[in-house]
Amino acid sequence: MSERADKEKDILIPGYTHLQRGQPIRWSHLLLSHAFSFRADLERLSELIPRVSTLPLGCGALAGNPFVVDREFLAKELGFVSVAENSLYGVGDRDFIVEFLMWASLAMTHISRMAEDLIIYSTAEFGFVTLSDAYSTGSSIMPQKKNPDSLELLRGKSGRVFGDMTGFLMTLKGLPSTYNKDLQEDKEPLFDAFDTVSASFKIAEGVIATMEVHADKMQAALTMDVLATDLADYLVRKGIPFRETHHISGRAVALAESRRCQLDDLSVEDYKKLSDKFEDDVRAVFDFEASVERRESIGGTSRKMIERQVQVLRKALAELIPSA
Amino acid sequence: MSERADKEKDILIPGYTHLQRGQPIRWSHLLLSHAFSFRADLERLSELIPRVSTLPLGCGALAGNPFVVDREFLAKELGFVSVAENSLYGVGDRDFIVEFLMWASLAMTHISRMAEDLIIYSTAEFGFVTLSDAYSTGSSIMPQKKNPDSLELLRGKSGRVFGDMTGFLMTLKGLPSTYNKDLQEDKEPLFDAFDTVSASFKIAEGVIATMEVHADKMQAALTMDVLATDLADYLVRKGIPFRETHHISGRAVALAESRRCQLDDLSVEDYKKLSDKFEDDVRAVFDFEASVERRESIGGTSRKMIERQVQVLRKALAELIPSA
Amino acid sequence: MSERADKEKDILIPGYTHLQRGQPIRWSHLLLSHAFSFRADLERLSELIPRVSTLPLGCGALAGNPFVVDREFLAKELGFVSVAENSLYGVGDRDFIVEFLMWASLAMTHISRMAEDLIIYSTAEFGFVTLSDAYSTGSSIMPQKKNPDSLELLRGKSGRVFGDMTGFLMTLKGLPSTYNKDLQEDKEPLFDAFDTVSASFKIAEGVIATMEVHADKMQAALTMDVLATDLADYLVRKGIPFRETHHISGRAVALAESRRCQLDDLSVEDYKKLSDKFEDDVRAVFDFEASVERRESIGGTSRKMIERQVQVLRKALAELIPSA
Amino acid sequence: MSERADKEKDILIPGYTHLQRGQPIRWSHLLLSHAFSFRADLERLSELIPRVSTLPLGCGALAGNPFVVDREFLAKELGFVSVAENSLYGVGDRDFIVEFLMWASLAMTHISRMAEDLIIYSTAEFGFVTLSDAYSTGSSIMPQKKNPDSLELLRGKSGRVFGDMTGFLMTLKGLPSTYNKDLQEDKEPLFDAFDTVSASFKIAEGVIATMEVHADKMQAALTMDVLATDLADYLVRKGIPFRETHHISGRAVALAESRRCQLDDLSVEDYKKLSDKFEDDVRAVFDFEASVERRESIGGTSRKMIERQVQVLRKALAELIPSA
Repeated sequence: MSERADKEKDILIPGYTHLQRGQPIRWSHLLLSHAFSFRADLERLSELIPRVSTLPLGCGALAGNPFVVDREFLAKELGFVSVAENSLYGVGDRDFIVEFLMWASLAMTHISRMAEDLIIYSTAEFGFVTLSDAYSTGSSIMPQKKNPDSLELLRGKSGRVFGDMTGFLMTLKGLPSTYNKDLQEDKEPLFDAFDTVSASFKIAEGVIATMEVHADKMQAALTMDVLATDLADYLVRKGIPFRETHHISGRAVALAESRRCQLDDLSVEDYKKLSDKFEDDVRAVFDFEASVERRESIGGTSRKMIERQVQVLRKALAELIPSA
Repeated sequence: MSERADKEKDILIPGYTHLQRGQPIRWSHLLLSHAFSFRADLERLSELIPRVSTLPLGCGALAGNPFVVDREFLAKELGFVSVAENSLYGVGDRDFIVEFLMWASLAMTHISRMAEDLIIYSTAEFGFVTLSDAYSTGSSIMPQKKNPDSLELLRGKSGRVFGDMTGFLMTLKGLPSTYNKDLQEDKEPLFDAFDTVSASFKIAEGVIATMEVHADKMQAALTMDVLATDLADYLVRKGIPFRETHHISGRAVALAESRRCQLDDLSVEDYKKLSDKFEDDVRAVFDFEASVERRESIGGTSRKMIERQVQVLRKALAELIPSA
Repeated sequence: MSERADKEKDILIPGYTHLQRGQPIRWSHLLLSHAFSFRADLERLSELIPRVSTLPLGCGALAGNPFVVDREFLAKELGFVSVAENSLYGVGDRDFIVEFLMWASLAMTHISRMAEDLIIYSTAEFGFVTLSDAYSTGSSIMPQKKNPDSLELLRGKSGRVFGDMTGFLMTLKGLPSTYNKDLQEDKEPLFDAFDTVSASFKIAEGVIATMEVHADKMQAALTMDVLATDLADYLVRKGIPFRETHHISGRAVALAESRRCQLDDLSVEDYKKLSDKFEDDVRAVFDFEASVERRESIGGTSRKMIERQVQVLRKALAELIPSA
Repeated sequence: MSERADKEKDILIPGYTHLQRGQPIRWSHLLLSHAFSFRADLERLSELIPRVSTLPLGCGALAGNPFVVDREFLAKELGFVSVAENSLYGVGDRDFIVEFLMWASLAMTHISRMAEDLIIYSTAEFGFVTLSDAYSTGSSIMPQKKNPDSLELLRGKSGRVFGDMTGFLMTLKGLPSTYNKDLQEDKEPLFDAFDTVSASFKIAEGVIATMEVHADKMQAALTMDVLATDLADYLVRKGIPFRETHHISGRAVALAESRRCQLDDLSVEDYKKLSDKFEDDVRAVFDFEASVERRESIGGTSRKMIERQVQVLRKALAELIPSA
């Protein structure tokens, strides 16, 4: 994912909030935003593993082992990090399952949000991406259809894993301590969530790696109104507070709309009428590349910041999965 | 809680699985089993805090800040651990809320399980504990009633916090990336869960600290059948495999039941008929104190292991809350 | 269930609120209280069936059928009650699944609450019921154990079905209308919930039909303090408002407690000191049978009202399952 | 909603599955598909009301009323449909709350799906609808933005109500019968869900009533490929089975794609090469109006069927809300 982001950082696209075009960003910036969610997932997983690696063996039925078993030796031999320090707790605790299910449910939410982005981007109306044939399906009735089934399944599976998590928490609720037969219900949700998340990450990876990106359609969606913030920022640099420049820029947008033209079709005279701080250099605002390059603080969408993000992610990956 | 456990470690009580009497344990062992759940909660909270402490400020509307703000300086000044490395992620990520809600929901499950134990122990039939007046309530109709309202509320509130968590995950599901107005629904569940968990831990602490423990009722519940495992273990020490001794002990239990007497009312002759490995020293089995003392592996219910648990918890507490 | 209730209506037992003894009731009254939950389930199911019986066939891919198919004829032939009146709705609606899952989840909550009652009643401390061997299991370690596994599984399975319901609602959330591949996730939760509920009702029926009831233990749990309300009611009949008699009765309870005796061990003189309205006939209050017989308004625990309940349930059953 | 549908039935729009253009439909058909979900909600509500209208008054603390109260008279006076037939059930049952919360959660899912459709339709890329100013909001940073906040809040609130429902079910889970203090948690979710659903339906109504519809943009989205099914159907009418005509039509789509033209740009000769059943009248297929008019079975998108739907809904509304 960060590789694709690294390669495609020249492509610009509107950034959306509320699904409405907001500001120009690099396409890679969007890909990377999802990658940062997955980094957090990986981080959480790496914290979870040592904690769930607690040996219950040697707790006996409930009161502990009466034959002086060396549980720390057992733990070492079996590859556990620690031993349950209280036998009742060891027998009745299922946090190691709940924690994994919660982790899985949050990870699937991230996959689901990414899928939602890409499903919308693969509509005829957006047209930003096309899934490879391996990850899309035709329709049994409508011969022209190419449906993003893989993404929809990823989105839908987030419900399944959520159900595993909430169902097991419901099972746990109200139980007295130690073992109760209700706990037999712990295995199916665990295995189901594990299988589903594993498969989902593989499929998500495949979808991302193989989808076609339509830079021309992305470019075409960059209408001048996404530079309205830059227009306001222009005036801020001339000394007007943002709360005022926001209004002035808004009036420019309204004027262009009323003339059914774009912001850059307005003349410098038009702009001067809106504020006397506008000068000829206002034309320089209408440059998408320049706009993204101005976002050069950490986290911004400038080329340098994209490169920084790729490095941060690579470093995190190397630390979290040393063998990868 | 570990203080009370430290003080009351002489009191014996039946340990239950499936709410059926299982083996004798120290009362402290039960208290400590819940304390270990809360230690895990504290541990998880301490891992969560640095991760959620990520500064979104400086992400702008979505594309990053165009005025070369020093976000790392801001983070330092405002006491954040790190900065969001991708502005879209910074604007749209709500993991810091989900993680807390998940943490809170699991912590409340622990409180709820402890409450369930104590509600059952405070029935007339068990009679093991009596809540202090501050944490119980009378009935508006039935003059004799003293209800464990505080514990029931603790148990009930686990649903409330679970609802906060599941509701917000539902709100997140299916959203495209960055900001969508749906995210406005993040504050109420967060604040509600925070307030509920904070209050619940305080109340739980108060209930535990002030409840009266009835050692005599606990002692009276120690019927000889909870030593059936020790009887089987006795024969194991004489060289018979557990799968056989389990059956022999079971027959002893059945014999006592048929005679409507206790295991220690059977004569040594009776035992010898069940297995020729039984000798006069079988009488030593029928000693609850000796039984708990045999559980001296880590996690067991012997005095030494209880003391170890108290130390482990105190050390953990000192590390996790340095100021406490 | 109502048969067992009909047969065992002579057995008295304490009725509990907050798991504390409240007032004497007939054992049948408790059984019937669960039966009324199941009647409501049956009622809801009977309303649900015609609504979910809507034929989607003939909706085509989404826009309707272009070959003038007679869908009403199809519906009749296939045994459906109605046809989907809008093809987009017919293609994308999954309410028939959600409604069933919600129904199933509520029904399992009822089973779970009944299981909770019986698990507690089958402890050594309560001792009210013993499950038959077919519905209980021994312990692999503790030879004396007889665990109410069937009831615990019923209680635990309520989580599973809840997970089916919440998971599928999560899958539905945020979908655009008509068909999306996410909907493929509808079958597994539906089938799983159907199988689980069907099996659970069968097992619940078996448990109830075969469990042994210990009338002596129930009788022994009827301590005189559960008549404290009747004592207050006695004074109400003598013209004192309940808010006062509640306090007077409470003082009687306190007095008996301080003397470590029962309410009926106090002398008539003692009572007269608490209120001059007490007369010799106060002794008649201390009669459990008389107490339950006084509850003869609809819904009460008197013999006649138990019989009424059995009739109401039988009539409902005959109407809701004509073939049964 | 059905009024708007009645008025705007001349407007055509692509019908989508998987968010991909599928077949032409009337815009009203889409509006009505949501209306049918709301009709089902209303139907369910009308069934729920008499069932939850059960009087618990007169159940006493748990065992029933000892003063021969006429509960049926009370129910009549207070406007309840029936009385709780078992006092333990009357005291402990909270199905009337669960049922409403489940109803509310499903209704909000419908609102949420409709909101999802309209949020997507109000993007610049789709451009099908524009919310009125009263139901949209600007951005505090980006001066050009007009965000569909009302719809996003409707979508987000579905999580809140779901949380009310799941949270309360969690509270109920594992409770013994009759009253337990946990039940105090029933009021907040009930009131919150009631308020949220009431407000949501009002807002949804306002959004629908005031939004502007862009028939030209809808028309522009009707590309010829959405007639590919009609092309296959054309050959079916000439006697070829659909499984074959589906492939032939698919090849026509592929041919047009390879020539970067539309289906109606292919010559009749081109079609004849794909199948000898194609004749000159194939040109008549490329008519969106004719396509929708062919869907004249019940549930179809033809004008007559739209009118039927409007009538069905009006009749249902009149029956379900007599006063409306």
